[in-house]
Amino acid sequence: MAASAKAVHAALAAWRRALGTENVLTDGDVLGRAATATFPTTQKVIAILRPARREEVQQCLRIAQRHGTPVYPVSGGRNWGYGSRVPPEGGCAILDLARLDGIRDFDERLGHVTVEPGVTFGKLFAFLQARTARLFLSVPGSGPEASVIGNAVERGDATGPQGDRFAHVCGLEVVLPTGELVHTGFARFDGARAARVARWGVGPSLDGLFSQSNLGVVTAMTVWLTPRPGHFELAFLAITDGEKLPALVDALQQLRMEGTIRGTFALWNDYKALSLCGGYPWEAAGGVTPLPEALLERTRAETGFGRWNGTIGLYAASRAQGLADRARVEEVLLSRVDVLAWDDRAPGVAWEDLDARGPGLGVPHERSVAGMYWRKRQGATATEPATATLTSFTASAELSRREPRATETETETATARGTLTPTLSRTRERETEGAIDPERDGCGYLWCTPAVPFVGGEVDSVLALCEEAIGGAGFEPQIAVVFASERLALVCAAIVWDRAAEGDDARAMACHDALLARLIGGGYLPFRLGVQSMAALPAGSDDTAELLRRIKALLDPRGILAPGRYAPSPVIESPRDHGE
Amino acid sequence: MAASAKAVHAALAAWRRALGTENVLTDGDVLGRAATATFPTTQKVIAILRPARREEVQQCLRIAQRHGTPVYPVSGGRNWGYGSRVPPEGGCAILDLARLDGIRDFDERLGHVTVEPGVTFGKLFAFLQARTARLFLSVPGSGPEASVIGNAVERGDATGPQGDRFAHVCGLEVVLPTGELVHTGFARFDGARAARVARWGVGPSLDGLFSQSNLGVVTAMTVWLTPRPGHFELAFLAITDGEKLPALVDALQQLRMEGTIRGTFALWNDYKALSLCGGYPWEAAGGVTPLPEALLERTRAETGFGRWNGTIGLYAASRAQGLADRARVEEVLLSRVDVLAWDDRAPGVAWEDLDARGPGLGVPHERSVAGMYWRKRQGATATEPATATLTSFTASAELSRREPRATETETETATARGTLTPTLSRTRERETEGAIDPERDGCGYLWCTPAVPFVGGEVDSVLALCEEAIGGAGFEPQIAVVFASERLALVCAAIVWDRAAEGDDARAMACHDALLARLIGGGYLPFRLGVQSMAALPAGSDDTAELLRRIKALLDPRGILAPGRYAPSPVIESPRDHGE
Repeated sequence: MAASAKAVHAALAAWRRALGTENVLTDGDVLGRAATATFPTTQKVIAILRPARREEVQQCLRIAQRHGTPVYPVSGGRNWGYGSRVPPEGGCAILDLARLDGIRDFDERLGHVTVEPGVTFGKLFAFLQARTARLFLSVPGSGPEASVIGNAVERGDATGPQGDRFAHVCGLEVVLPTGELVHTGFARFDGARAARVARWGVGPSLDGLFSQSNLGVVTAMTVWLTPRPGHFELAFLAITDGEKLPALVDALQQLRMEGTIRGTFALWNDYKALSLCGGYPWEAAGGVTPLPEALLERTRAETGFGRWNGTIGLYAASRAQGLADRARVEEVLLSRVDVLAWDDRAPGVAWEDLDARGPGLGVPHERSVAGMYWRKRQGATATEPATATLTSFTASAELSRREPRATETETETATARGTLTPTLSRTRERETEGAIDPERDGCGYLWCTPAVPFVGGEVDSVLALCEEAIGGAGFEPQIAVVFASERLALVCAAIVWDRAAEGDDARAMACHDALLARLIGGGYLPFRLGVQSMAALPAGSDDTAELLRRIKALLDPRGILAPGRYAPSPVIESPRDHGE
Repeated sequence: MAASAKAVHAALAAWRRALGTENVLTDGDVLGRAATATFPTTQKVIAILRPARREEVQQCLRIAQRHGTPVYPVSGGRNWGYGSRVPPEGGCAILDLARLDGIRDFDERLGHVTVEPGVTFGKLFAFLQARTARLFLSVPGSGPEASVIGNAVERGDATGPQGDRFAHVCGLEVVLPTGELVHTGFARFDGARAARVARWGVGPSLDGLFSQSNLGVVTAMTVWLTPRPGHFELAFLAITDGEKLPALVDALQQLRMEGTIRGTFALWNDYKALSLCGGYPWEAAGGVTPLPEALLERTRAETGFGRWNGTIGLYAASRAQGLADRARVEEVLLSRVDVLAWDDRAPGVAWEDLDARGPGLGVPHERSVAGMYWRKRQGATATEPATATLTSFTASAELSRREPRATETETETATARGTLTPTLSRTRERETEGAIDPERDGCGYLWCTPAVPFVGGEVDSVLALCEEAIGGAGFEPQIAVVFASERLALVCAAIVWDRAAEGDDARAMACHDALLARLIGGGYLPFRLGVQSMAALPAGSDDTAELLRRIKALLDPRGILAPGRYAPSPVIESPRDHGE
């Protein structure tokens, strides 16, 4: 529910006084870009507020509360496929937290760092690299410019030991919708020595309230880091026949459950794997979509990918531990896969080797983001190193099932052979033109992400449903299954299209909504929601929804913080303008 | 704030109608025992309510809300050293949840079980044993009759892979103080397939609100289980000189951080270790307390314990993994310890071997509880097997630092040689006389439990402070340091006395309060509070305490649920009797 024009006018004036005119953006082009996602949206944005300090965030919220003018906090804005920076409801000012980019505290021995919302994965990587720290932070697929706090509070995933990000953070500093300030865990007590090492504190634990919610703005957070392993083993595995998937998933669950695999890892289908190497093979396909089955098979053969593919990192302290883990993986997996190849480069994990082995060791990359350009005729956008890392692993004809061996860093790929559309390196371009920008470039991208028990048969049937629904709508289903814990598989199914292609926007949205409804109907609830789908959750038969409504009304009496975000029925005080 | 006599009378009548007269206990002896802790308390209990089903819990709370008569939920009541079953404020009815003892659901493959509050560690162990399940549940020191849910919601610790219990549960079913029903995570959606395998669900995560709180009664919870390892290595380590402690702690932190040690483990000081073997050596000490230094040293030599001692379990899938982990532990620890001995019995971990290797593999035991009888002249109370397990490890003269080898199950112990007071086996007695009962037996026991960063120097100085304060008051400090995560040490310092010894009650309380205040003043906040100390926390300089007060007032308008529990300033509606 938008505020009155008079209230907006008064709020803008107050925000300008608080932040300076230069930090309250109302230029039409700027607002238009902020209101653009990777799928159609109609919400308008009234301003972009750019506070630089926590106190300014508090002021912004007090002003919003006073005038009833809603704000929508954005850290890095890389909420790609879920709505980017676009608020679920129109009439919001975007509270852009990028200028709060301090790294407040760092402890190498205990492995923790305290960051503000503007700290990106790229910035934190550079920070650790500059110190040649013996630590890394597991990275998500959203690239080097994604916010660490954004990833955590949205409960995003990442590759490696701390893949369940929100389980590895503590000490949140939170500004409530009223402008009040709270801290979670021991951080609420001045000088508490365990504030950055303990999750729970003493008394009720509040962290969860501020994840996937609209109950507060997180302005700082302690993030736990992982020691770089003394010995790192990285496996690439593939199956050529989808029939083998259930047994493979069950075997992987056994390895995860028993602790041989200790971090988050993923399987990708062929479409997802191909999208990491290059763009849609327009030429080979004669300009036709969707991708013909024969061409898919040909490209798969060229790249060395299977029907399902994955990488698994094994993190050990000693060489003996690493080799014992590797032997155990082989014992369990060899009979289940067609390819099991080990990357034997640089087991010592020096900083200079990281680029080539990066994603599992905390090197931010854009290879997943590049996949959003799949259907763009101008070619995919990606940095070369990430692509080379992946394809080096998969394109080698020498990969052997029974005799895992080293693979080469530089090998010919399908893109070089010309089937996939060549990947453009934008590294140089970006210096003059700005970062990768799927919204500007008209990439169509939508996630549908059900949570599924880590059981072969069940994962398989959900994947079949997703592939069928997305393929049936004329798109190539790009799917990753993220094994987020010993018991949980997060199916991340993307619908990818070119927003310039006539009719595809509408077809993609309809496909997404029908698939989401079907998954929810089957008991496969999404673990994360796009801004367009906040009302898609069923009511539930207990009093939880009502409790959430009451808590929202308690913390945010006028409903000014991110209305509609993970809260389909916000409680808003009866509309009136308090004046200033 | 107690309700009026009229309100209590009306509430009792309503509770009787709801539960049947036989399930509303008001007998003076019964109430007196329920109001007895292991330290002096003055709170009176007005009744014990014994609902058998969740719907009856809801009725009990609605009645309480209607009449303003507070209730205090108790699952197993083994909150020993923190107040047992005694409410922080007088005038409560105890809501005894022991009759809700259903095991609702069990999945061996995914390793989860859904239990009600009356399910104890002993019951769950028997359940798994009866199925020869390939799973176990890490156990705390509070014995086989402690409640699994009680341990989790109080955020207690345990030994082994899931030592941070509350991080390994999901899908809480919670009755709110108003009688409403909520579920956490995906469990709020009927038929959600991931309800028992995913922690967060979608939207704000509420679990934390219902731990260490008075915001709801948890009537069911899914608990994650650990696979029994294919290969299990168990080490006993000791240092004879306290000066070596900081370096040892730092080495242990390295092993935990790098992932060689993957579960919760502990170090115990000599007093704690001795208390696990037998009672105070009254005869050798000539009836004098505290324990003379020379006698401590003699007993330590006889038992084989060092100044600081510990066991570490290594959980592996294959023998090669287990041996590689063991070699890594030796590489890091050998130069830091005086004893490092490996238990080489039964690496296969068959059910029939568990008793002998139990605590790290989920076998509930009473050896810590037996330590509460330390100062009782009638002798300690314990079951033999647990004691034998420990002492077999420590009393052997053949323990070797450089050549770890198997130790014998049955060896002579200091108790057998006569220095410590012999341990009485109550296994047979209990069949006729009831369970171990420190409250009935006048055991004095109080915990003081600061959270400390897992850093040698810092742990060492907190331990010194605790030993000095407790020793200075004339008691033997029984201290365990529980390494709860890669970064966090929980110092569990117990004051142990005989409540029949004149003046000791007062001296122990004063010692506890002074130590707690001193620790808090130094930034070492407790991670758990006894019912007598709920007001000991500082206010904090932000709005967190106020937020907690508001949430309490929202969920519990009349303040009838566990008033004062982790909430020193409960908000209670202005006193009035609504009548019935």
